[in-house]
Amino acid sequence: MRISELAERCGMPLPTVKYYLREGLLMPGVATSATSATYDDRHVRRLGLVRALAAQGLPLEKIKTVVELVDNPRDDLFVELGHAIAALPPYVEGSTGPDYPRARRLLEHLGQIYDPRFAAVAQLEHALAALETAGLRMGHRRIDAYGRHVRAIAELDLELLPTDSREITVEAAVLGTALYEPVLTAMRRLAHQHLAARMFGSGDLPTTGDDPAPNDHQEQQ
Amino acid sequence: MRISELAERCGMPLPTVKYYLREGLLMPGVATSATSATYDDRHVRRLGLVRALAAQGLPLEKIKTVVELVDNPRDDLFVELGHAIAALPPYVEGSTGPDYPRARRLLEHLGQIYDPRFAAVAQLEHALAALETAGLRMGHRRIDAYGRHVRAIAELDLELLPTDSREITVEAAVLGTALYEPVLTAMRRLAHQHLAARMFGSGDLPTTGDDPAPNDHQEQQ
Repeated sequence: MRISELAERCGMPLPTVKYYLREGLLMPGVATSATSATYDDRHVRRLGLVRALAAQGLPLEKIKTVVELVDNPRDDLFVELGHAIAALPPYVEGSTGPDYPRARRLLEHLGQIYDPRFAAVAQLEHALAALETAGLRMGHRRIDAYGRHVRAIAELDLELLPTDSREITVEAAVLGTALYEPVLTAMRRLAHQHLAARMFGSGDLPTTGDDPAPNDHQEQQ
Repeated sequence: MRISELAERCGMPLPTVKYYLREGLLMPGVATSATSATYDDRHVRRLGLVRALAAQGLPLEKIKTVVELVDNPRDDLFVELGHAIAALPPYVEGSTGPDYPRARRLLEHLGQIYDPRFAAVAQLEHALAALETAGLRMGHRRIDAYGRHVRAIAELDLELLPTDSREITVEAAVLGTALYEPVLTAMRRLAHQHLAARMFGSGDLPTTGDDPAPNDHQEQQ
């Protein structure tokens, strides 16, 4: 398709698509003449990735990091995924020291393999340090339950990750990390609301069908 | 204790404590003379709340909203909690329309009680719309699994919520929402890393003790 058709199919203004092309966020099309080129599904997917990351508030330079990783494969898919995910927010400064004692303790308690060079370890350390600052401590019961349920969520994420090609896998992993985090945090707030409505009582909330909550307790055993 | 002792106990600079006092974020102490006042554990807890929310990037005006809700109890604890949580980021604009079709569909599928006036519904709608923009769709399998595991996490959150007083409950609910979200998202990224290291192979990661992961599959049944 032509660039104008690409823009239309993605529902984006043509100048934006051209801008992404100039900035190297969208890979060039295949030239069909001196002044025109043709684009395909890879370009549609790439624009979806760039737009989704931009909508999450990622600065262009960080989106460029992700895109360059997707376009320049490394030997090790695992390392590549790590670098791509590290380009996503939150951007944590190393104020907690280089050895991440709180994060290590939690990860070792859960028996998880981790690479301290990856950004998520610093993010976890920062989040646990913020808890301490507020006078809270994450006890073993919470660590175990969060660890178990988050692991189950992550297992499904990986199971549903497309494996058509290395490029598609890395793109989907980045999108899935960036886009499902706000879904999960909103779902947790709404689960609190649902449970609190029943605990503390509440006026006139719309109830939606039967409530399957009682069965959930089985899972906690 | 005196204000200087309060600042020391919280590890905060005295001018910051005085600033929070002037801005109404910290409630006044009990006057002991024309020029001095005494402070107690409530002030220590309040400074912890204000500092934790500020560290999450909340603007002072939003922190003030939370603090005013804590200090001015309403009839309905449930409604009060909803308003306090709504003061937390992300701040979503109503660009998706007032009826939140995607969020409603998900919540009704899960059989959850919800109040569409509460901010988390708009946040969920916004997050689901962002998925669609990127060409992704949250299928029933993912909705069911996320719903089940997030609900279990939320049940534990409410179980561990202190109920000493209404003020302590609301403060802890706000803190728990704001501070455990980054813990959960970092834990999910690290669970991905743990699982991906085993799926895709990886060079020289430190392994930490025995890996209990195989048992987790039982939970998915």
